[in-house]
Amino acid sequence: MSDIGKLPIGVFDSGVGGLTVVRALMERLPLENIIYFGDTARVPYGVKSVATIEHFTGQITDHLLNQGVKMLIIACNTMAAVASGVVRQKAGAVPVLDVIEAGAGAAVVESRTRAIGVIATPTTINSNAYARRMHALDPQVRVYSQACPLFVPLVEEGWLEHEVTRLTAQEYLKPVLAENVDTLVLGCTHYPLIKPLLQAVVGSSVRLVDSAITVAEQAARTLNELGIANPGDTLSTYRYTVTDIPLRFQTIGERFLGRSLGIVEKLDW
Amino acid sequence: MSDIGKLPIGVFDSGVGGLTVVRALMERLPLENIIYFGDTARVPYGVKSVATIEHFTGQITDHLLNQGVKMLIIACNTMAAVASGVVRQKAGAVPVLDVIEAGAGAAVVESRTRAIGVIATPTTINSNAYARRMHALDPQVRVYSQACPLFVPLVEEGWLEHEVTRLTAQEYLKPVLAENVDTLVLGCTHYPLIKPLLQAVVGSSVRLVDSAITVAEQAARTLNELGIANPGDTLSTYRYTVTDIPLRFQTIGERFLGRSLGIVEKLDW
Repeated sequence: MSDIGKLPIGVFDSGVGGLTVVRALMERLPLENIIYFGDTARVPYGVKSVATIEHFTGQITDHLLNQGVKMLIIACNTMAAVASGVVRQKAGAVPVLDVIEAGAGAAVVESRTRAIGVIATPTTINSNAYARRMHALDPQVRVYSQACPLFVPLVEEGWLEHEVTRLTAQEYLKPVLAENVDTLVLGCTHYPLIKPLLQAVVGSSVRLVDSAITVAEQAARTLNELGIANPGDTLSTYRYTVTDIPLRFQTIGERFLGRSLGIVEKLDW
Repeated sequence: MSDIGKLPIGVFDSGVGGLTVVRALMERLPLENIIYFGDTARVPYGVKSVATIEHFTGQITDHLLNQGVKMLIIACNTMAAVASGVVRQKAGAVPVLDVIEAGAGAAVVESRTRAIGVIATPTTINSNAYARRMHALDPQVRVYSQACPLFVPLVEEGWLEHEVTRLTAQEYLKPVLAENVDTLVLGCTHYPLIKPLLQAVVGSSVRLVDSAITVAEQAARTLNELGIANPGDTLSTYRYTVTDIPLRFQTIGERFLGRSLGIVEKLDW
């Protein structure tokens, strides 16, 4: 089975946000090869209908499976929330991880008071996927959800410590904090970039769960359990495929990844 | 030629923003039939590459020409900025108006000091389309441009008079106001919804040019000149086609249109 180990992990997102997951994977699993797919021509998914998201997600899954991957990671909360069934059906024996499963699991483990907040895009929140997953793990947990549609554009504008972002966070988080949550799930891959600001707004008594880090932990466990970790006798390779290369893509992408992006390939569908 | 008069005007945008143009047309030309096309499955265009925008714009133009329209109005600044050539080439004898031509023309007429500001999405600003159009009309004019990527999400969040929006506007407009402009072009169809807030930020000495209103004026003149205005012996009909019906579409759409949307048809491409 050592040949499977050398195959890349396929990570995908609607845009650049999933690069925070790639970054966490690079740090946790430095020997693994990674293919990243960002559907930048059709981003953002968070405002689209379920049928459209399922259709687009299926296309991306087929593309990555055709590349030959040993694991798929849905690094987009919107896709994980409404279309993970499509991915798992297509993937067959290839293991599929997603940021919601990882984030929900970590939150239930971390919370002491069993009062947990979730912030995400409107589609993720309306899907109720985090609350459902957490209730399946612990029926006693109380979940307070808040859609934060302005966080993605604020992060992409680079206003990571800006007064406008702080005011916006205070407004969005007020009702969640009023419920005395002790754990807050960052249910969107853009949000880790404003983690320091969010931590300041919620205060030090609230733990932030970063799905990028938790899904990388879960990937490490799964690769070991299945015996398909990369033995790592060669340098890891990272490939990035996007459906469009918009203005400022390089800048924003590198901010998410925390390092140079290298060569980005554009796929025309 | 009276049969042509009864044909609808085709108005299109990447999403819901162009409904501000439909609203202005309904008020200025109440006898005209209108077909609106919003590419809501692929919105926003403002962050996509030129090649992608041209491709999408061509598809929409073909679709509306196949419906039989007597005039096309590009109600999306991004498409007008980078893809109006594609539309005019496909349209042949059908007149094509666009929000940039209308807004640039009105600004040059209105400005006394010949110092004009333009605010728009990053793609529109980077295309330099407003400045080029204004310089063609008056080589003496000085144009100061500012990309405002957060205004669209702020408008769609409904924060039309919110402190966060005011702070954001102050930050974006500071460099433009420092140039002592006497006219500011709202170079995005979302911006008319925050016109009162923007007017308060720029002060009463700066005139705001609303492209939705100016393109409706231009449509009225063109229809009369070509003798293809609708004689109006029946009630006007309005049709709305979108490529996706996302969450909150009805709410946001009606906020833009200023009235009930009625039946919205979804087109699967």
